[in-house]
Amino acid sequence: MPSYTAPTKDLNFVLQDVLAVSQSDIPGYSELDRDFTAAILEEAAKLAEGVLAPLNMVGDQLGCRLENGVVYTPDGFKAAFDQIRAGGWNGLDLPEEFGGQNLPYLLGSAVGEIFVAANMSLNMYQGLTHGAISAILTHGSQEQKERFLPKMVAMDWTGTMNLTEPHCGTDLGLIRTKAVPQDDGSFRISGQKIFISAGEHDMAENIIHLVLAKAPGGGGGTKGLSLFIVPKFLVGEDGSVGARNGVSAGKIEEKMGIHGNATCVMNFDEATGWLVGDLHKGMRAMFTMMNEARIGVGLQGYAQAVVAYENALAYAKDRLQGRDVIGAQNPDGPADPLLVHPDVRRMLMDQKSFVEGARAFTLWGASLIDRAHRGQDVEADGLISLLTPVIKGFLTDKGFEMCVQAQQVYGGHGYIEEWGMSQFVRDARIAMIYEGANGIQALDLVGRKLAQDGGKHVMAFFAIIKEFIRDNESDPRLEGVLQPLKSASKDLQSAAMFFMERGMKNPNDALAGSSDFMHLFGHVCLGYVWARMAVASYAALDAGASDRAFHEGKIATCRYYMARQLPATAMHLARIQSGGEPVMALQAESF
Amino acid sequence: MPSYTAPTKDLNFVLQDVLAVSQSDIPGYSELDRDFTAAILEEAAKLAEGVLAPLNMVGDQLGCRLENGVVYTPDGFKAAFDQIRAGGWNGLDLPEEFGGQNLPYLLGSAVGEIFVAANMSLNMYQGLTHGAISAILTHGSQEQKERFLPKMVAMDWTGTMNLTEPHCGTDLGLIRTKAVPQDDGSFRISGQKIFISAGEHDMAENIIHLVLAKAPGGGGGTKGLSLFIVPKFLVGEDGSVGARNGVSAGKIEEKMGIHGNATCVMNFDEATGWLVGDLHKGMRAMFTMMNEARIGVGLQGYAQAVVAYENALAYAKDRLQGRDVIGAQNPDGPADPLLVHPDVRRMLMDQKSFVEGARAFTLWGASLIDRAHRGQDVEADGLISLLTPVIKGFLTDKGFEMCVQAQQVYGGHGYIEEWGMSQFVRDARIAMIYEGANGIQALDLVGRKLAQDGGKHVMAFFAIIKEFIRDNESDPRLEGVLQPLKSASKDLQSAAMFFMERGMKNPNDALAGSSDFMHLFGHVCLGYVWARMAVASYAALDAGASDRAFHEGKIATCRYYMARQLPATAMHLARIQSGGEPVMALQAESF
Repeated sequence: MPSYTAPTKDLNFVLQDVLAVSQSDIPGYSELDRDFTAAILEEAAKLAEGVLAPLNMVGDQLGCRLENGVVYTPDGFKAAFDQIRAGGWNGLDLPEEFGGQNLPYLLGSAVGEIFVAANMSLNMYQGLTHGAISAILTHGSQEQKERFLPKMVAMDWTGTMNLTEPHCGTDLGLIRTKAVPQDDGSFRISGQKIFISAGEHDMAENIIHLVLAKAPGGGGGTKGLSLFIVPKFLVGEDGSVGARNGVSAGKIEEKMGIHGNATCVMNFDEATGWLVGDLHKGMRAMFTMMNEARIGVGLQGYAQAVVAYENALAYAKDRLQGRDVIGAQNPDGPADPLLVHPDVRRMLMDQKSFVEGARAFTLWGASLIDRAHRGQDVEADGLISLLTPVIKGFLTDKGFEMCVQAQQVYGGHGYIEEWGMSQFVRDARIAMIYEGANGIQALDLVGRKLAQDGGKHVMAFFAIIKEFIRDNESDPRLEGVLQPLKSASKDLQSAAMFFMERGMKNPNDALAGSSDFMHLFGHVCLGYVWARMAVASYAALDAGASDRAFHEGKIATCRYYMARQLPATAMHLARIQSGGEPVMALQAESF
Repeated sequence: MPSYTAPTKDLNFVLQDVLAVSQSDIPGYSELDRDFTAAILEEAAKLAEGVLAPLNMVGDQLGCRLENGVVYTPDGFKAAFDQIRAGGWNGLDLPEEFGGQNLPYLLGSAVGEIFVAANMSLNMYQGLTHGAISAILTHGSQEQKERFLPKMVAMDWTGTMNLTEPHCGTDLGLIRTKAVPQDDGSFRISGQKIFISAGEHDMAENIIHLVLAKAPGGGGGTKGLSLFIVPKFLVGEDGSVGARNGVSAGKIEEKMGIHGNATCVMNFDEATGWLVGDLHKGMRAMFTMMNEARIGVGLQGYAQAVVAYENALAYAKDRLQGRDVIGAQNPDGPADPLLVHPDVRRMLMDQKSFVEGARAFTLWGASLIDRAHRGQDVEADGLISLLTPVIKGFLTDKGFEMCVQAQQVYGGHGYIEEWGMSQFVRDARIAMIYEGANGIQALDLVGRKLAQDGGKHVMAFFAIIKEFIRDNESDPRLEGVLQPLKSASKDLQSAAMFFMERGMKNPNDALAGSSDFMHLFGHVCLGYVWARMAVASYAALDAGASDRAFHEGKIATCRYYMARQLPATAMHLARIQSGGEPVMALQAESF
């Protein structure tokens, strides 16, 4: 069975050495001194390593089952969920007013990585709840907040997002679920939703569904959609749990992975719902949930790679096979460990440089969210809005690829379920699909975010890179770091320029390169955070840090990323610059 | 449930228009006229589409089960296997002397693609038998051939390869299974083998295991290994089936995919075995099986992508979601088909250009095997020996990636098992691992094949590309085809040069780039066969071919590959040229 050890030291390195949170001017960050964040991470690690991780394979093997409308989660999930609840982990970054601890979103993300790596399926019940809370916090009435949030923050009640229907996923304008207004101000909701994660289960006394439906008026397409709160059990004004509502799980899907999470078909049969926010403005409210969820999914993508990498590394150190070509490293043993072989190292360095880069990128993104929300900073808000599809799309594509790579290190054993590497691959796969398939992320990036506010946010991004390079280029040790970053950033600028020039005339010239652009952007982001990590490690070494091997390792891994990963940017640029013609030339009937 | 339609037209295009088999001087090829090959392919298609493909998902869902030492294959497998047997499909390319039809290996490969795409797990029982036959044909005594081959060619008996043990897969020098010589010339074989595909099942009256074991003398490592025939039931001199031998399946592995194939732990308890070939020369005999098996596995990699692509394409034409950004294509419907979206097209064109290129590459390779064996051509033998790791490694890495891409086209439905796309991904995954994990293929390519016979074979490969470009560069229509090929081929030459210059001083400088080199090589091979396909299609169009859309489609797809895939070669070269240092710099204890 695979094991998991939370990388608390690496996480705290990003928080303290790279992001320097305790010196930040973001409201609430000054409390985050090194000992405090370390203590929180250690507590999370204890729960993750001791309780959540040992249930990960159990969840995969047992899955969820539906009997007479009741969904039973895998053995042990309920007790583990109770421990997450008892620890107050869900409220970590939620308002004190509703029972939370009001710590930064950044800290919630760092803890999130630990929980997701330990047990992604179990964590999803919490993640969906968190998203539903955000939507109610942002768009709900004060009365709704008071009625629902205390129980949801405490996770006595969990939440869901109900968007997809059998005939539409991406194209929500086709939604058929209907909402009929009632005299008492409520709505009757009828229709069918599919792929509803955590849609029904046995771990909470109530489930608060957020449902996108069509209310009369408002016109066609997504403009006619409104968002509704539809609880599994009706909730009295005093917050008391009442009668069962007209919503039930009709089926659990048999999926490739995340078996521990119940993915349900939800049937709404004149269920009572309450409008959240404005009528026919449901998409806006849904996007609040989705944007947060997308960063959460990006985090899932790399967190699965974190645990897969840990196990691949342990295997490569342990498994004896073949000899170092330079000379035996373990002459008294029957063979040398796999780690001596250059191609095995290449796989491990790919993984290591990705997961550590992805972590720094995601946590930087989380700090931008804090700056935007806590600091009311519209520029930070614009920047994270630009980066969100990159975090989601790039980190899940690459995270999956790295899980496959980790599985490969195991050779034949990687393909056998009892070793657990297959589960990481199968679980990570969903992250490329849900919350907007990665093609949709690329479309969002190129078709919407890039030109948003006159292209201001991408210009701000380039300015950040440029300023960083200028601030550090006097340090000769950084030459091999900053040059590749500069070149990759130039590729990204050329690609954006190509889209501007050509996309106006023919949108397909831009859209055909959208996924390549997302990957090119992702590499520049990882290159940037790796350069920041190298700067931080050089600074620590200069200051006489005791753990020299740790910082030297960071610098070597940074150099690996620059040498071995950043060359991808030129390839993506070449593909982009070939334009839409090669992609669109083939007639539909010639396929 | 996914469907499968054998691409007989595309296969015959490669055989007739690209490889021009009926005009070839390879012995036996002159019989292969267009109607003959079309008729064989159509017969294979009928069986594959009507019988094998409908059992593919059944095999995945039911899997194999072991009860009291007996392995039961999924419902329907036995009857389908009987039909393959009755059709004489296994003997297609085997000697008439033992009941085969003596047709070229090339034709066997074309049929193989069809059977593998339809049902990879079921086909494996046949594929392993084929490999075992080859080993006996090449290394067995005349008496052994007469005793075993007629039944094996007819597939009344199936075969296996027994190499891996719990503590060793790649490093066969560590094998512990023992062979003790007996007075009657036989050996007593004792030990445990794992991951034995088709190791035990209920579809044949006997199973002929080929087992690598250590006989006394012969020294350590792989030098001490010999190859033995160990039948499940002993076989009399007259070929009659006798008593049960001391070999049995101890366990069936729970795997990520290929559930329809029984992957067994095989226990040998003083089983009777007969030496094949020379004592202590077992590795050589095993390589005969492995080289054939490696091309077969490359074929599996792309064949899974063939069927996955077919289904993704059908889904993209059928599923209505969103609108064409240029203007509605299906204005009377609720939305346009997925196929209108550039990023969906990109995914489909990636798949199409890969599978059609991979097919042409593999069949070209198969024709080199025929030229080597039937034509006794040592140069062809050297060339296919060089290309074998590329076929195996590159086509399985990419084939898997394309299955993932095909699954992605389905959005959320791709993750649900009932749609069948997950199975293609899970099944294709094994091909990157078995018959030598792809890192081993890269090592074989760079560490052995590249410099073999003084680098003669890679020089021959470059000469082929060069000659092809020279022969065709007068055609102005080919400019956008030949230029990218020339540039990609130059990248490959630079990489080979880098290895020659640096690898001598430090082998790690070459080995750290081995996987990149394998991929770079694969892209050049696909670029080359795509250019040949474009030439063939222009020729067909010039000759007034009736099916213009087919040939125009080939040319458009060739251009896609050149524009969108070949830019990868520069990236691989850049990574290679960064050398071993970034890969090896990190100290083992700093990981």
